[in-house]
Amino acid sequence: MEPNTVEKPSVTMLGLGAMGTALARTWLAAGHPLTVWNRTPARAAALVPEGARVADTAAQAVAASTLVVVCLLDDTAVDEVLADTDLVGRDLVNLTTSTPAQARARATWARSRGARYLAGGIMAVPPMIGVPEAGGYVFYSGSRALFERHRETLRVPVGTTYVGEDAGFAALHDVALLSAMYGMFAGAAHAFALIRREDIDPAALAPLLADWLVAMIPAIHQTADQLRSGDYTRGVVSTLAMQVAGTPTFLSTAEQQGVSPELLSPYFDLMRRRLAEGGGEEDLTGVIDLLVR
Amino acid sequence: MEPNTVEKPSVTMLGLGAMGTALARTWLAAGHPLTVWNRTPARAAALVPEGARVADTAAQAVAASTLVVVCLLDDTAVDEVLADTDLVGRDLVNLTTSTPAQARARATWARSRGARYLAGGIMAVPPMIGVPEAGGYVFYSGSRALFERHRETLRVPVGTTYVGEDAGFAALHDVALLSAMYGMFAGAAHAFALIRREDIDPAALAPLLADWLVAMIPAIHQTADQLRSGDYTRGVVSTLAMQVAGTPTFLSTAEQQGVSPELLSPYFDLMRRRLAEGGGEEDLTGVIDLLVR
Repeated sequence: MEPNTVEKPSVTMLGLGAMGTALARTWLAAGHPLTVWNRTPARAAALVPEGARVADTAAQAVAASTLVVVCLLDDTAVDEVLADTDLVGRDLVNLTTSTPAQARARATWARSRGARYLAGGIMAVPPMIGVPEAGGYVFYSGSRALFERHRETLRVPVGTTYVGEDAGFAALHDVALLSAMYGMFAGAAHAFALIRREDIDPAALAPLLADWLVAMIPAIHQTADQLRSGDYTRGVVSTLAMQVAGTPTFLSTAEQQGVSPELLSPYFDLMRRRLAEGGGEEDLTGVIDLLVR
Repeated sequence: MEPNTVEKPSVTMLGLGAMGTALARTWLAAGHPLTVWNRTPARAAALVPEGARVADTAAQAVAASTLVVVCLLDDTAVDEVLADTDLVGRDLVNLTTSTPAQARARATWARSRGARYLAGGIMAVPPMIGVPEAGGYVFYSGSRALFERHRETLRVPVGTTYVGEDAGFAALHDVALLSAMYGMFAGAAHAFALIRREDIDPAALAPLLADWLVAMIPAIHQTADQLRSGDYTRGVVSTLAMQVAGTPTFLSTAEQQGVSPELLSPYFDLMRRRLAEGGGEEDLTGVIDLLVR
C-alpha cells in the first residue's frame, strides 16, 4: 500500500454503465480523486458515498481532470457526449467499443480538438475489473506518450497491453481475439450438440473438450510461424490433404446425430478450396489467405 | 522397468500406415511379441529388425494373438481385411477412423463372428505415439471386459480413456473434440486474417490469442452446467442480447479489413435466431439447441 500522503492523479470518467461503474469503483477504492458524469444522473449519484464528485455536465467533468476516460455505448454516443466539451490539453482515453476505422477517425477528431488520444479495447467483463487474478486487461493503442504518462493510473482497474501508435490497433486486437473466441465457442457448441441425444453427461465431456482445446493451442503459434515465413508446409504433421480426407467422417457423424453442419461446413469448404488450388501438402494456414479479399 | 522374465502379452497389428507403424514400434520397444500384417508387405518387413514377426495373410496374423489391433484406412478396408479371418475368441480392438454408426455396426458384426470388440478413437498424431508427455490418448468404448483385460498393453503406446459400453461413443467423443478444434482453428484463422494487411507481426498476435482462448476455456464448463440444469441463464455475465448487440462491430471490422465473414457469420446468425426466439437473457448455450434437429 502506498501512503495516503502521496496524491493520486485525478481521473474523470464519462459513462457509468456496468463497465464504467466497475472502473470508477476501482479508482475510488485506490484513492484517486474521481469526477464522474453519466447521462442518467442516478448512476453517478450512486458513487458519491464512495467518494466520487458528480459533474452536472460532460463539459464540467472534462474540465475537472487532465485524464478523461470515456466508456459509452458506442461511437455515436462519444460524439454526442463530447460535442460541447473543451478537450484542449486533455488526455482522452476512449474505452468505448469501436471498429478500427471508428477509432482512427476518433483519434484524428480528438487531435483536431487539441487532445492527446488513446484508444482502448477492454478484454474483460465487469466482474473481472479490480480482480487482477481474473486475467482481464485492456488493449491500448494511439499516443504512446499518453499511455506512458498514465500507465500507473490505467493499470489500477485492470491490466494494460499497449499495441502501437495506430489508434485502430486496440480495437483490431480486441475484435481479433473475441472473433477467435466465438470460433472456439462455435466449435464447442457443435461438440455439445453431437452428444445432445446420447446418454453422455455434458459435464463429463467438458473437461475432455477443455483439455483437448488447450492441447491444440500450440497450433496457433505454428500458424503464426508459417504466416511469417510464407511457408505453409513448415512443421506440418497432418497435411491439408489428409485432413480434407477426414472431413466426411465429421459430416456423416453430424448427420447421424441429427446435428446441423452449419458451424463446421464453412471451414471445411475453405479447406477443400485450398486443396483444389494445390495446397494439399500444406498445413491449414492457407485458409487464411482465402479469407482475405 | 519390469524384469524381462515377465512375459508381455502378444499383440497382432493389422495395418501399418503412419499411425499403425508408430503403435507397432512402441509395443516392440516395450518387449511385446508382435505379429504384423500390411497389405503392402514392405511396411511390415521394415519392422523385422525391431523384432516383429510378419504374417503372410491377415488370417495368419489374427491367429497369432488373442489381442488383435486393427488400424486401417477406413471401415471398408476393415471389412475387406477381416473377411477371411477367424475371429472366434479374439479380442478385436479397432482403431480405424469411423463414424459412431460404423463403429456400432462393426461391433455387432464382430460379436456375430465370435469376437469381443473394443472401438478406439485416436486423439493423437503419429509423432505423439510413445511420447507420454505429448498428451495424446485413445478414446475406447465397447467391451469393458476387453478394455480391462488389455489395459496395460493398450496404454503402452499412448494414454487410454474409456467412455462407455456403446461402441459408437469412442468415435463420437473423437469427432466431438476434433470438431471443436476445427471451430477454434476457424476462429484463429479469422483473427489472423484480420491483421493480414496490417503492420502487426502474427507471432506477436499468437501469444495474445493463445492466452485469451485459454482464459475463455472455463466457459465450456459453464455451458455444460447450463445444459445439465436446463437453465441457460445460470451464471450468465454477458447475456445473449448484449452479445448480439456487439456483433455489428465484428462484422464491420471484418469488412474494413477486407476479410470474409464466412467463418463468423453462421454462429452470429444462430445467436440472432435464439435472441428472436426470446433467449436474450440467456448465455450462448441456446445455440446448441438450434443445431440439433
